[in-house]
Amino acid sequence: MSLSMYEAAIPPVARSLRNLSAILAKAAAHAEARGIEPAVLLQARLYPDMFPLVRQVQIATDIARRGLARLAGGECPAMEDNETDFEELIRRIEATLTYLDSLAPEQIDGTESRPIELPIRGETLHFNGQSFLLFFVLPNVYFHVTTAYDILRHNGVELGKRDFLGEP
Amino acid sequence: MSLSMYEAAIPPVARSLRNLSAILAKAAAHAEARGIEPAVLLQARLYPDMFPLVRQVQIATDIARRGLARLAGGECPAMEDNETDFEELIRRIEATLTYLDSLAPEQIDGTESRPIELPIRGETLHFNGQSFLLFFVLPNVYFHVTTAYDILRHNGVELGKRDFLGEP
Repeated sequence: MSLSMYEAAIPPVARSLRNLSAILAKAAAHAEARGIEPAVLLQARLYPDMFPLVRQVQIATDIARRGLARLAGGECPAMEDNETDFEELIRRIEATLTYLDSLAPEQIDGTESRPIELPIRGETLHFNGQSFLLFFVLPNVYFHVTTAYDILRHNGVELGKRDFLGEP
Repeated sequence: MSLSMYEAAIPPVARSLRNLSAILAKAAAHAEARGIEPAVLLQARLYPDMFPLVRQVQIATDIARRGLARLAGGECPAMEDNETDFEELIRRIEATLTYLDSLAPEQIDGTESRPIELPIRGETLHFNGQSFLLFFVLPNVYFHVTTAYDILRHNGVELGKRDFLGEP
């Protein structure tokens, strides 16, 4: 027995993005109930040189979409980074989930040893498919989803770890 | 080709804990350079009802140690939650890594369909080995390591995502 690359990649990333979408819906309801301008939360950040919430969501979806496209050896749809409210961020997540759904197991399975070159900030990182998934895509998606959660918690949105983990 | 459960579990969790250890060492150096009492950072939190840094590190190591022991079907060493400085937290991580090193691939491989029952806050969650690893252990470890990182960033410690991801 073993895990397929598809099983290790797509369902965990998709679940985390669905959880993020539900977290953003709670944040939108929180803002509306308290008369908070949504842009205040979208631009909230934990430190002046950290990315704000809107960018955390954009990056989480970019890593999911581009990372899994890279693994599958294909192209993925471009997305403009122009979201200005929670509804638009939720639609971005939905579009990302639609893309993930379009990837067939046979496009991801068997990519364990596929060489992956990742140009990033002036250097090129070298992975194989397995290390790219386990040491780059998954932790990176969880990093940005957690940081989005942390920004909202820091701003008083009522969330618990179950919101991050989703239903088992 | 496929991934083994061991490969999907132990190296990613171990790497994330090693990265957390290095992050804590940077925080300790930051505190010393600025004359900040380490306890101030250990007790820092992002919101009054969120756990402070010290607890984030304790939980990250607990989930790693207990989660992987549960997957392997064995017992793991108990740990007291009595750390009062960065050095003690780093030693806790080292002890956790030593435990992870003690798990042999044959204890983790083949556990994909092993039933896992997780008593948690008055209810019992049901997983198999694969869903327990992919939907509980990995996201949970990353959640607490990221939140530790976010608490320290929020308090001005100079860190970047490379500190979280580690060297590829």
